[in-house]
Amino acid sequence: MSAIRHALSVKRADDFAQWYQEVISAADLAEESGVRGCMVIKPWGYGIWERIQHMMDARIKAAGVDNCYFPIFIPLANFEREASHVEGFAKEMAVVTHHRLIADGKGKLIPDPEAKLEEPLVVRPTSETIIGDAMARGIQSWRDLPLLTNQWANVVRWEMRTRMFLRTSEFLWQEGHTAHETREDAKAETMRALEMYRACAEEDLALPVIAGEKPENERFPGAVETWSIEAMMQDGKALQDGPSHYLGTSFAEAAGIRYQDREGGQQLCHTTSWGVSTRLIGGVIMAHGDDDGLRVPPAIAPWQVVILPMLRDNEGDEALLAYCEELRAGIVKQAALGEPVRVLLDKKPGKAAAKRWDWVRKGAPVIIEVGGRDMENGVVSLLRRDRLWNDAAKPDFTTPTREECTAGIGAILESIQQSLFEEARDRRDANITRGVASLDELAAFYAEDQRYPGWVEVQWSKPTGDALDKVVEQLKALKLTIRNVPMDAAPVDGSCIFTGAPAVERIYVARAY
Amino acid sequence: MSAIRHALSVKRADDFAQWYQEVISAADLAEESGVRGCMVIKPWGYGIWERIQHMMDARIKAAGVDNCYFPIFIPLANFEREASHVEGFAKEMAVVTHHRLIADGKGKLIPDPEAKLEEPLVVRPTSETIIGDAMARGIQSWRDLPLLTNQWANVVRWEMRTRMFLRTSEFLWQEGHTAHETREDAKAETMRALEMYRACAEEDLALPVIAGEKPENERFPGAVETWSIEAMMQDGKALQDGPSHYLGTSFAEAAGIRYQDREGGQQLCHTTSWGVSTRLIGGVIMAHGDDDGLRVPPAIAPWQVVILPMLRDNEGDEALLAYCEELRAGIVKQAALGEPVRVLLDKKPGKAAAKRWDWVRKGAPVIIEVGGRDMENGVVSLLRRDRLWNDAAKPDFTTPTREECTAGIGAILESIQQSLFEEARDRRDANITRGVASLDELAAFYAEDQRYPGWVEVQWSKPTGDALDKVVEQLKALKLTIRNVPMDAAPVDGSCIFTGAPAVERIYVARAY
Repeated sequence: MSAIRHALSVKRADDFAQWYQEVISAADLAEESGVRGCMVIKPWGYGIWERIQHMMDARIKAAGVDNCYFPIFIPLANFEREASHVEGFAKEMAVVTHHRLIADGKGKLIPDPEAKLEEPLVVRPTSETIIGDAMARGIQSWRDLPLLTNQWANVVRWEMRTRMFLRTSEFLWQEGHTAHETREDAKAETMRALEMYRACAEEDLALPVIAGEKPENERFPGAVETWSIEAMMQDGKALQDGPSHYLGTSFAEAAGIRYQDREGGQQLCHTTSWGVSTRLIGGVIMAHGDDDGLRVPPAIAPWQVVILPMLRDNEGDEALLAYCEELRAGIVKQAALGEPVRVLLDKKPGKAAAKRWDWVRKGAPVIIEVGGRDMENGVVSLLRRDRLWNDAAKPDFTTPTREECTAGIGAILESIQQSLFEEARDRRDANITRGVASLDELAAFYAEDQRYPGWVEVQWSKPTGDALDKVVEQLKALKLTIRNVPMDAAPVDGSCIFTGAPAVERIYVARAY
Repeated sequence: MSAIRHALSVKRADDFAQWYQEVISAADLAEESGVRGCMVIKPWGYGIWERIQHMMDARIKAAGVDNCYFPIFIPLANFEREASHVEGFAKEMAVVTHHRLIADGKGKLIPDPEAKLEEPLVVRPTSETIIGDAMARGIQSWRDLPLLTNQWANVVRWEMRTRMFLRTSEFLWQEGHTAHETREDAKAETMRALEMYRACAEEDLALPVIAGEKPENERFPGAVETWSIEAMMQDGKALQDGPSHYLGTSFAEAAGIRYQDREGGQQLCHTTSWGVSTRLIGGVIMAHGDDDGLRVPPAIAPWQVVILPMLRDNEGDEALLAYCEELRAGIVKQAALGEPVRVLLDKKPGKAAAKRWDWVRKGAPVIIEVGGRDMENGVVSLLRRDRLWNDAAKPDFTTPTREECTAGIGAILESIQQSLFEEARDRRDANITRGVASLDELAAFYAEDQRYPGWVEVQWSKPTGDALDKVVEQLKALKLTIRNVPMDAAPVDGSCIFTGAPAVERIYVARAY
């Protein structure tokens, strides 16, 4: 049996970080922009983001949340009033100090000293405070509640070390901000958003996740509770996205978000916030990519099916293109995952084999090649990206008739969506270790020569304050963090591996992005 | 006959500028944010923008243009290399000079002097140059052309005097940037984008426009040709949007966008750019609004039909809501303008009359009120926003049966779309004056005590350079500008009103936003 000749030069097992960069470049998802910490998101990467937006936005709207748009600039005063906010993340920010450029007389442009802002403005790192201001203006009575607001926007957090999609100075996200009468209502919204993220990750991105509450030390600064979804990457590390915060009344107090209750009294609102970002695309790459490039789950693939006519620049091309166009017209009438199939007939110049491997690296779910002989036989050559190689180390083409291909395409795409999910779920489940009963055992587990040791589920007594700080330090020494307290964990039956006290819940610890 | 009691406090005829502000507030489209020059776009306003985006994006994708995303920050060097760019618009810009805030020890935050950027960054006023850089990296040979790129983004131009939607420091837009092998290809793309804007304005926004070429003095700095669509507002002024620029090879030269041609030689690309912004919403307000608020064309209305059950907080409410829900379920299955009808059953607390007038001010195309008596009679009370008042100065309700209402709703919405367009077109055509044969006549025309004199079509000899500057000055003294050279003008048959030389084309002059 000959060895497979993979389409990437770096394998996941050899250098996962390098492999990640190669996928981004080989799938033409994004590139460095030349502007520090900012990337250019290219058509295939942005198309995936548009699909994620489309499906998430439908979930947001179905929940009765209204999209709005808020200013990109935030006055310093908004940050000053929330000390905890500033401590948490607000230090590294892009600060606008001038509103004009002038020529310096030496061929250069400089900020005009005459155009210095009286108060500098910050490019939003999040819109928490400016949306809080709008809520304070807009809410008078309980009749105005709940106020459910969402924004799709770019935000900027000045990052020293950046990695495309995972950590960039500018990124795209949605941020939901809601205000409610009661703690119960706000908690219900927090959990609704978390469930929305779980469903989006698992159903749209084929990304199995564990939803749960973050420990106190990982809470959003000022939040009462922070929940998250955690996904396992193929190197065993955890990637968090979809944080959902129950903020209590502290943010309402800082921004003055009050309402007249049903008895005429003045009350503070209970607020929430929640968001997902282009980071999700990093998760898709690291969960589904393989040594041949990206594999895009059909639900979020800009093109689910790519038809490649094997043109020969001769008089036979016309008939071949007509044959392919008929195939395209048939497929576009089919449905998969509840939507019309997205199919591209790729007529761009270039050799058929080179184009095939471009689409393999990009991870189009189904690639259909059609040559003269296929046409003569009334068939097509179909390649599923999730099952690329056969036992002979060759691309595993099947050759259904054109009619079979058209009629079956919906089922094939749904099968690919399902198989990517199951593959990732099985890998995750196989890499969760239970029964580690002490910190020493935990240290030994991660010290062993395993490249990707995965996650460990341990029991703990949920210490707080200094005792929690000590646990965090102990884990940090092992390069580990607490991921979350899973919602569906088994009951506890042992002692805390950190304090020895009776355990009160189970937590996941892992290395993380 | 009693007088109509309109829903706004200011009438268009009394103070158009004040009326404009009141519509924005009464329809809850947007509000001041407290951040200089930046507005908050509220759900109804943002919903209209989402509809415009949705329809424009479909046109953009159908033309084979790929959406991408480029950095919000642009290095100064990008502006320095294009002197003409800087002269044109690049002076008033938000300049980022620091990447960190620190506490000053007196309870305030200040930009950290230790965190000054070596090179300041500009918040993009347009992405021309940064997309040019990406094109230069991405284009090698003629096989890579045409490169058709679009971006949906926020941009910032520091404005001294702002007016919501029409001129704000931050606004939302799409910017198309394309590169081509030949002048012909780039010109064809310029005209394709212009036609896309015309179709969007006329078909989606019900906004009749005149498409044509801008005169030399109104060209985008560095462009070879600038084309635009011009719409007439109800005060007779012109509003431009949808500029489409053929940029020749000068932008390609500045950014180094070269390709290897079919013979192996190195060539500069011919480039184009084109964009529309949230300014369009200002145009919709000023073209379709009336003394009762906004009237949203059905194609871009977030909700096309609003059902208002006249609840009485008693045991009859349940049956009434069920009756309304059945109506909603029937309407949502109907289609109008090629899409499912967007219908809201508004159950929010509040008096039915107050809610009706809120939706009148917002301009929902169809408002359906349902009271107990309607239910008993199997009918509904239907109000078309485009025909609000009857001869008795009362809201002009009709009372179709529920089944008639459901079956007829698509046709009603299409009729509203058409009638808004025709009303605006007839008003525009009635306010275009022809036959003005001299500058004195032109001055006299605009000097007369007409509040809204509209536009004048004149013939001219298309002077250039100093001669054109003189014309521009003469018009400026009358507060007039040249709008464009309409594509479908009649042949010339006279002399230039400025130079007396034989005319070569017809132009529109008008006051403008």
